Amino acid sequence: MTVDSSCLMLVNGERQDCISSLDRGLLFGDGVFETLAVFGDEPRFWVRHLRRLGAGCRRLGLPLPEEVLLRDEATALLTGNEACVLKIIVTRGAGGRGYQVAGNTQPTRILQRHPWPAGSPGCADQGVQVRLCTLRLGSNPQLAGIKHLNRLEQVLARQEWTDPDIREGLLLDDESNVIEGTMSNLFAVNGGVLTTPDLSRCGVAGIMRTVVLEQADHLGLDVTVRPLPLAEMEQADELFLTNSLIGLWPVTGLGKRTWAVGAVTRQLQDRLANLKTEGTAWRD
Amino acid sequence: MTVDSSCLMLVNGERQDCISSLDRGLLFGDGVFETLAVFGDEPRFWVRHLRRLGAGCRRLGLPLPEEVLLRDEATALLTGNEACVLKIIVTRGAGGRGYQVAGNTQPTRILQRHPWPAGSPGCADQGVQVRLCTLRLGSNPQLAGIKHLNRLEQVLARQEWTDPDIREGLLLDDESNVIEGTMSNLFAVNGGVLTTPDLSRCGVAGIMRTVVLEQADHLGLDVTVRPLPLAEMEQADELFLTNSLIGLWPVTGLGKRTWAVGAVTRQLQDRLANLKTEGTAWRD
Repeated sequence: MTVDSSCLMLVNGERQDCISSLDRGLLFGDGVFETLAVFGDEPRFWVRHLRRLGAGCRRLGLPLPEEVLLRDEATALLTGNEACVLKIIVTRGAGGRGYQVAGNTQPTRILQRHPWPAGSPGCADQGVQVRLCTLRLGSNPQLAGIKHLNRLEQVLARQEWTDPDIREGLLLDDESNVIEGTMSNLFAVNGGVLTTPDLSRCGVAGIMRTVVLEQADHLGLDVTVRPLPLAEMEQADELFLTNSLIGLWPVTGLGKRTWAVGAVTRQLQDRLANLKTEGTAWRD
Repeated sequence: MTVDSSCLMLVNGERQDCISSLDRGLLFGDGVFETLAVFGDEPRFWVRHLRRLGAGCRRLGLPLPEEVLLRDEATALLTGNEACVLKIIVTRGAGGRGYQVAGNTQPTRILQRHPWPAGSPGCADQGVQVRLCTLRLGSNPQLAGIKHLNRLEQVLARQEWTDPDIREGLLLDDESNVIEGTMSNLFAVNGGVLTTPDLSRCGVAGIMRTVVLEQADHLGLDVTVRPLPLAEMEQADELFLTNSLIGLWPVTGLGKRTWAVGAVTRQLQDRLANLKTEGTAWRD
């Protein structure tokens, strides 16, 4: 058993670092997860993450653990006041060898506290170089949007490059619309209009994506959520990536195309920084 | 920890029933598996299963455990001379929270011995009723054909019905071609020609599917592997399903459409029965 001493874990409320090898999370990826940024022992956007976790559970037809239970367990893990990452996984639990769910299957909940990721200073300020992945995302409306455990597409896409200066790979669907990055959502600004891809056929609807859409609305920006053809994205005035841990990274390079960090991007970064100061932890 | 006493397990060669909750098999479905029928302590079509496991590992870029190791561990589990099921899982192992594979990640191999599934007497002889699933399989050529751990499509499709008289659900792609069942491959016979769907965009290329294709060839049947439109399948003279555990099940009903068990189906069942008697265990 490999034990990563930098990671603290609870499985169904017990301090342990392993799960049954009959768990359907392992056998089929039959579950959902959330990745939360934690500052000062408080997970940011807790309520939103829990809401998406619930939506994912409903989509898969598995019971969501009670919020108070998850909150108590998260609180027990989050001591030390350091920035860290909280990962919550809910699987359908152990039961049976086949795809059919046995009636007595009990969900498994796993909470993991991970160290804050190192190695990306300057990305938010100076922007990042990205690449276009060869892998195309498959289409599945029943799985689109939720953060389920079937993530081989992202794993394969992330294997396409090793250059550490390339911070993210962009993924297209089979109609050459840009959908997202391997670990982030994508926004484009063109003629003052902010556009992020429609995720009704594939992709993960990130929490930070929703927060940015709301903040853009507060700023009075025109916002559209629709299919975004690659050719149109390449002509954008500004491009940026979002996720719960990175916040907002401007894209400054894709192949030979370069971008300056634009005014809308900076405005939205300022809004996110204010939100952080205001405190949006357990309450939001 | 839920322990199923009817299942014997080895994880990396050790008798244990759990794996690290940091294993990428759980976090991302980052791995592959095989399900083998075992008679008289001998797994059927061992060489073929190992070959597909290897192909899956290559596709995902993960090292295949040595065959001799897997064989020794399987032998250790398979004592008692009863019909049973051997499940082999190979994951990328524990390492990191993100999609990128850490350099020091060691694969996890899991062998599980499950009881032989009960509850389907007469299916091979009398045939089965099937249904058409609403869920459509997403297209991903890089994952098509291999038996990877991202199986949420099958889990969701299997949730579409509870009637125990319906033995399988058929899955279409988004162009209304029939691809497979949730747990089986599909064959249609029309005008003496045996057709099974092309699996280059989605689906799992089953071991029994390959065996049946070979046996059909020995019988001198005309065989085609190509996209199979639903409308064409519904007009077939004979239909049947295959997998490693069920062997070959004739389809006798789909909605209001009924079929008799046909001559080609019976010929192929006879061939498979002969193969079983001849012994095709570790050697094939």
